[in-house]
Amino acid sequence: MFRTHTCGELRSSHCGNTVTLSGWVQRVRDKGTLIWIDLRDRYGITQLFLEEGKTEPVLIDLARSLGREFVISATGMVTERESKNPNIPTGEIELRVTAMKLLNASKLPPFTIEDKSDGGDELRMKYRYLDLRRNPLKHNLELRHRLALETRKYLDDQKFYEIETPYLIKSTPEGARDFVVPSRMNPGEFYALPQSPQTFKQILMVAGYDRYFQIVRCFRDEDLRADRQPEFTQIDCEMAFVEQEDVLNTFEGLARFLFKQVKGIEVGSFGRMDYATAMKRYGSDKPDIRFGMEFVEINEQAKGKGFGVFDEAELVVGINAQGCSEFTRKQLDALTDFVKKPQIGAKGLVYVRYNTDGSLKSSVDKFYNEHQLKEIAECFGAQPGDLMLILSGNTDLVRKQLCELRLELGNQLGMRDPQVFKPLWVTDFPLLEWNEDAGRYFAMHHPFTSPKIEDVHLLDSDPGKVRANAYDMVINGVEVGGGSIRIHDRGLQKRMFSLLGFSDEEAQNQFGFLLTAFEYGAPPHGGIALGFDRLTALIAGYDSIRDFIAFPKNNSGRDTMIDSPSEIAQHQLDELFLKVTAQKTGQ
Amino acid sequence: MFRTHTCGELRSSHCGNTVTLSGWVQRVRDKGTLIWIDLRDRYGITQLFLEEGKTEPVLIDLARSLGREFVISATGMVTERESKNPNIPTGEIELRVTAMKLLNASKLPPFTIEDKSDGGDELRMKYRYLDLRRNPLKHNLELRHRLALETRKYLDDQKFYEIETPYLIKSTPEGARDFVVPSRMNPGEFYALPQSPQTFKQILMVAGYDRYFQIVRCFRDEDLRADRQPEFTQIDCEMAFVEQEDVLNTFEGLARFLFKQVKGIEVGSFGRMDYATAMKRYGSDKPDIRFGMEFVEINEQAKGKGFGVFDEAELVVGINAQGCSEFTRKQLDALTDFVKKPQIGAKGLVYVRYNTDGSLKSSVDKFYNEHQLKEIAECFGAQPGDLMLILSGNTDLVRKQLCELRLELGNQLGMRDPQVFKPLWVTDFPLLEWNEDAGRYFAMHHPFTSPKIEDVHLLDSDPGKVRANAYDMVINGVEVGGGSIRIHDRGLQKRMFSLLGFSDEEAQNQFGFLLTAFEYGAPPHGGIALGFDRLTALIAGYDSIRDFIAFPKNNSGRDTMIDSPSEIAQHQLDELFLKVTAQKTGQ
Repeated sequence: MFRTHTCGELRSSHCGNTVTLSGWVQRVRDKGTLIWIDLRDRYGITQLFLEEGKTEPVLIDLARSLGREFVISATGMVTERESKNPNIPTGEIELRVTAMKLLNASKLPPFTIEDKSDGGDELRMKYRYLDLRRNPLKHNLELRHRLALETRKYLDDQKFYEIETPYLIKSTPEGARDFVVPSRMNPGEFYALPQSPQTFKQILMVAGYDRYFQIVRCFRDEDLRADRQPEFTQIDCEMAFVEQEDVLNTFEGLARFLFKQVKGIEVGSFGRMDYATAMKRYGSDKPDIRFGMEFVEINEQAKGKGFGVFDEAELVVGINAQGCSEFTRKQLDALTDFVKKPQIGAKGLVYVRYNTDGSLKSSVDKFYNEHQLKEIAECFGAQPGDLMLILSGNTDLVRKQLCELRLELGNQLGMRDPQVFKPLWVTDFPLLEWNEDAGRYFAMHHPFTSPKIEDVHLLDSDPGKVRANAYDMVINGVEVGGGSIRIHDRGLQKRMFSLLGFSDEEAQNQFGFLLTAFEYGAPPHGGIALGFDRLTALIAGYDSIRDFIAFPKNNSGRDTMIDSPSEIAQHQLDELFLKVTAQKTGQ
Repeated sequence: MFRTHTCGELRSSHCGNTVTLSGWVQRVRDKGTLIWIDLRDRYGITQLFLEEGKTEPVLIDLARSLGREFVISATGMVTERESKNPNIPTGEIELRVTAMKLLNASKLPPFTIEDKSDGGDELRMKYRYLDLRRNPLKHNLELRHRLALETRKYLDDQKFYEIETPYLIKSTPEGARDFVVPSRMNPGEFYALPQSPQTFKQILMVAGYDRYFQIVRCFRDEDLRADRQPEFTQIDCEMAFVEQEDVLNTFEGLARFLFKQVKGIEVGSFGRMDYATAMKRYGSDKPDIRFGMEFVEINEQAKGKGFGVFDEAELVVGINAQGCSEFTRKQLDALTDFVKKPQIGAKGLVYVRYNTDGSLKSSVDKFYNEHQLKEIAECFGAQPGDLMLILSGNTDLVRKQLCELRLELGNQLGMRDPQVFKPLWVTDFPLLEWNEDAGRYFAMHHPFTSPKIEDVHLLDSDPGKVRANAYDMVINGVEVGGGSIRIHDRGLQKRMFSLLGFSDEEAQNQFGFLLTAFEYGAPPHGGIALGFDRLTALIAGYDSIRDFIAFPKNNSGRDTMIDSPSEIAQHQLDELFLKVTAQKTGQ
């Protein structure tokens, strides 16, 4: 038996008991005749105590030979400490060691196993098992476990069944790039790993399962941007006989339940905002509404005053930074530089200071007199002490730029507290997006999303105007997930495929099973998928998902710990009837 | 809104309420002026009622136009039925329809959606969404959902964290064949899909997570025998600072909890049997102990009496079928044919009848007199009325043959009730198996299994004798799962790899990360993996797993519903730097 208790559970009520603990040596303090060892396991840290003259010499020697991260088990009597440590739950006691055994030695770790490690990203990834020993990662994975379990309990209460869908499915051209899996038993043919279980969950609705969910891995072979992973996890859900409102209420309920269960926070009712409003007020379909600073459009007030930049712009739009009129020149230059970064791409930034003395001063005083600036300030509802920041240009572009500026200011002004949560449903997304390069429409959500009934008549005449029964759950400017009411009518689904440029044959070849299923009594249905990695990071108050995944891959899709992907044996290729036509270039 | 209630919840207490239901038309009974519709959803069936003269004519017409599996929604008043149906929970009421809407039509399904369908396997697989509508499959998937959730609750209570491990990992030569996934970003390199998360869960123990589990998909590219799937699900678990006994107790606890929660059955304490005993008494490492009929070895009594077959055999062994002395000649011939089937391969079957009058009669009376037969009967503990069945030959082979005969007899005698559950731990498996073809040892469990300390000294001198700290959970003759205490010492692990024929370089290349991890404080650890598909089928009392998987593949690894695997586009192959060297032969 390796232990009677964990390193996190002994209290002064255990004093006098003889117990055995096992764990890792966090540190050894050797003060001459007295030796203390901090012994760590998942549950906490307990102090071991040895004393020359009282403890057996062989144990003293063993204690002195221990290094960081050695694994030991120790038996002794629980004793009240002389100097208590109120910072840890076991701080009232220590173990007077009467037996101790080395279970495994450890080389000196390449970085410190502390809350703030001195290890760089690369080293931490290679020795992930050491990085995972650090408290922050332990808390992240515990949170993830807890969230998954509570999600399952909530959805089970709501009569959802968790049903596993296959991972070896079929490659489809719409959407991102698939990972494919050659089939040895079917030479020349491939499975694909699912980008989501979309069609299977719809099939389950056709099959009458009524409420489905799955916490499921999904795969996308994309060029990895920072903080994207080739495999990721989603909470995937579908419901039959529902309208949009039913889905929103159910999953607003889930999110509120999770915040309550796991963080003890009441996030309250979710806001609702349609896509058009979100774009107009925040320049984003995932607005961060922890703070205001809404967009104000001032075409009327800004144009025709001789300032060519504004006159030529499709849209002049700005935000009011309350109480920021005393931003220094340097601060304003920095903001200008920010919006002029190539990733953002604005040409410049116009500001209007509403000084505390009531006077107005702008970077375009040449074109606007005080009265005109006052008019602009009124549009913004600005008060003395405020600072207006204005951009102009093509509508879509300038909104994106101003969105970035707004978020940056929100950061600078401390208005984006990661421990404050403001959730929102964004609804009424466009059904289709025009792609100039491809010369055709693409589904904004996916090809199975239902148009709004009242917009169906526009499908032929003005497809770009058709709104979808689609919705995103947005929290703190993060798209936590999205979904839609699906098409359940075979005719409409075929029309949709045709709009997306599928020939009848292609539609049949790729999605024939779904079209056929729709002939056998498909119920109205809809659903949602929430990004579980992202949701977990968000709830913990973090931006990056990487430390919420036990074994993430780097930006080249590599797992540097196991050194994967890697070459495979020739006989494996032969069995699969495959030939590799290019070798990896040297690293 | 599509419904106020489900089709399973209305009772006589709802009478007088106006409600709306949605679902599928199970059947329409048109008795002239009166029409009844059975409306079905996941939750049950509710009877709708329409009456000419009272119900609006347009609804009567609609009702008459409905076919099987049409999807409708209907509103009406809940009314007490004239003739109640005590067989269904909603049998006291019906809905007097005041509004009804067709939501989707249905073609006539290619087979009946009834508990016993008239559809063949192939048709049912192709139209899986229709097959899944049948009650037996619905119950199976509900059971699966319930088992998964209860498993998670139990393990969470036991302080296990569910931690997701990657699906895109690294191909390793030991074990079954891997499915591989070409990496576009790393030309010429491949990921592999995991056959199990074995090394990752061990890494999590090194990382200090103490108790890990995951209900996880695993993949094996094997030639599919009946009832094997290329992807399958396991309850995968690992614990640190444990000995074998800790693991057995924890997972015996899980199994008992599941039977209790889901079936309301107390299965009691698990039996324990070591591998050698299981092989000797039952000829199997997964004995079905719902019935006795244990093997009796009779070399001493059988040999040297002039019967050459026995004299030349390594082992003469039999079973006693109690109360079967009056088996007919035909029955005995059938049993003889059974053991002579090529899959079993016995040369013949010797019987000894212990007649109810106390006389003994055998198929080898030429060689054994009544006294000698009596001696044999005594070995078996046989009584008048019993029938002894005896095989002989090479020990391993004859045990396998007799095992099959015993199970067959158990079936014939109704001793294998699928609703009776007799669980057992089989322990002390051999560490290694000699493979004649390969001319080397293979790991019986896997290369990470720890030998028993007391047998380590045999590793060099007599490796085949070394027993492992390995165990299987066996219920009703089914191997539900297995596990082991793992090696946590780098030196021993390297020695093991070397015994298994790995060069140092190969070991480093494949498992270097694990060997390195063992240098940084690896704790003693062990675990288990339970086959979740199999466990679910077993608990339901079924042999086959196929109807416990929502979307199984057929014996060629194909999903005939979605028609996968399939060819992929040339540009996909090009992007992956792959060339296919053989095409599928025509079907």
